[in-house]
Amino acid sequence: MDSAALHEEIDLFFESAPPLKDSTEITDKLNQFIKFNSPSSGEGKARRVVCVTSGGTTVPLERRCVRYIDNFSSGNRGAASTEYFIKAGYAVIFLYRRGTCQPYCRSLPEDPLLECFEFADDFNIQVWQPHSEAVKGAIRDHHAAVAGGLLLKLPFTTIFEYLQILRIIALSMRSLGPHSMFYLAAAVSDFYVPWKSMAEHKIQSASGPLDMRLMQVPKMLSVLRTEWTPRAFCISFKLETDSKILLEKACMALKKYKMHSVVANELLTRKEEVTVVTSNGHISVHRDKTRTGSDVEDPLVELLVDRHSTFIKESST
Amino acid sequence: MDSAALHEEIDLFFESAPPLKDSTEITDKLNQFIKFNSPSSGEGKARRVVCVTSGGTTVPLERRCVRYIDNFSSGNRGAASTEYFIKAGYAVIFLYRRGTCQPYCRSLPEDPLLECFEFADDFNIQVWQPHSEAVKGAIRDHHAAVAGGLLLKLPFTTIFEYLQILRIIALSMRSLGPHSMFYLAAAVSDFYVPWKSMAEHKIQSASGPLDMRLMQVPKMLSVLRTEWTPRAFCISFKLETDSKILLEKACMALKKYKMHSVVANELLTRKEEVTVVTSNGHISVHRDKTRTGSDVEDPLVELLVDRHSTFIKESST
Repeated sequence: MDSAALHEEIDLFFESAPPLKDSTEITDKLNQFIKFNSPSSGEGKARRVVCVTSGGTTVPLERRCVRYIDNFSSGNRGAASTEYFIKAGYAVIFLYRRGTCQPYCRSLPEDPLLECFEFADDFNIQVWQPHSEAVKGAIRDHHAAVAGGLLLKLPFTTIFEYLQILRIIALSMRSLGPHSMFYLAAAVSDFYVPWKSMAEHKIQSASGPLDMRLMQVPKMLSVLRTEWTPRAFCISFKLETDSKILLEKACMALKKYKMHSVVANELLTRKEEVTVVTSNGHISVHRDKTRTGSDVEDPLVELLVDRHSTFIKESST
Repeated sequence: MDSAALHEEIDLFFESAPPLKDSTEITDKLNQFIKFNSPSSGEGKARRVVCVTSGGTTVPLERRCVRYIDNFSSGNRGAASTEYFIKAGYAVIFLYRRGTCQPYCRSLPEDPLLECFEFADDFNIQVWQPHSEAVKGAIRDHHAAVAGGLLLKLPFTTIFEYLQILRIIALSMRSLGPHSMFYLAAAVSDFYVPWKSMAEHKIQSASGPLDMRLMQVPKMLSVLRTEWTPRAFCISFKLETDSKILLEKACMALKKYKMHSVVANELLTRKEEVTVVTSNGHISVHRDKTRTGSDVEDPLVELLVDRHSTFIKESST
């Protein structure tokens, strides 16, 4: 597809999307967060800023949404990576799917409130001992990151919300130049029903099978990279279930979207290993199996932070 | 569709479904719960038992599931109704979608652990005052219901899990005869991709639009009603976004599936009013607007409990 056709497709996508409800509030929060972490601020400390996207986007099938297509993603990768980026001195804009895994909360049970607390006496609740460290750690570290201006959380649900907010973030982060990074771990829908051609009411199930035609979501990655935020360090992810085509698809994405790296991961082994694909070759990254509770995101973020440092140096010469 | 064809369709659905992982554990829990609340037990008290289903089911589009179709449902109706059934003396089997609203937790914020707690000192956390009552009430009432043998929670995600567990519940509740009720508030998928014809790997997005053909999920309601649990009191729900066709569709469901009542609700007004459709006519049920925080589930459950009493009396004569 040529550039003019892609731009037309993207314009159509945004024009036909339902307008974002709280765009002014989001822009205000972003500007404040970026200013706080900018060299010129005087308030906080000059930090690199990374936008970590996390969780899956939904595609509504009806305008008054009853049914939608969803992309499976626990958000564990994004939450873990956020923790390691903050540890490495970054400020993180965490663009996450509502209800998915949150930074510092990965070791908690599914429903922490109901599973981790008990009544100490008639009036007071207390953390149940086996979960005490995890619960206290989650609350302490999460609050510290938010209160310290190191973590800004922005939620989304639909593909329309996700891409609109991502564009606002990219434009806000422009001022940071090469000190900004995009770490696009969200599972973004490939196919959607354009808002204009969407059924107004719930699709009826009276008669026989349902045939659906879904359009491809325009590939925003190249526009993000070359237009929205041309000086940022950009990492995208490629998930496949078939290992045979994984690296080939990751290499294609690297070239097509001009990413600085593509993290290739396979559904079944994604917690153990990933491959960082760059124009200089592939690097295999593994979880440290000698340590219990270690994450593959630990060495992955370390590697990318290192690459980002080189990128910043090269950008300034 | 005639009965033989429906049975064939249902058999095919269950045969082709991925096997339920923890069916023995589920059956054990159910038998224990039902025994505890049975007249003959001697342990608990003889109670009526209602199975409340809640939240939406998913339909995987790929075997190694990356994408799936989901049905929007917060689970608020099911969670609220569960509280009112327990208040009315019932024991509740709560068959709910993972991650949806839980009984006694409806007034909590989205992420209660991160939004409701703060550090009191370096070692202890405490509930943040504005949420104190809601948090303590949720933990107290929820634990009391579970510990008292009045609430059994069983989670599902896919349509395959939901229907398999529902069948196990129905067969387990048979022994309760007319003292059992089904309150089917879950948003169950109408369309699915049969497991056998499902793509093994992630669907590729390389070339053009995606055309999908979804099959109708066989209508299990009539089989639940007439075969799995023929003596239970059965309530189903009908949600539409178009008020013009709502009552007509609810009446059709009442006849077709031989339900004792169908609760008709419209997407936009579902928290304010519902219509209970029975073979003797329609009853409109409204939230008590003179009380802040009142729920439409309060008078709805009251009405259905009353109808259930009549049903039990009539069954024994």
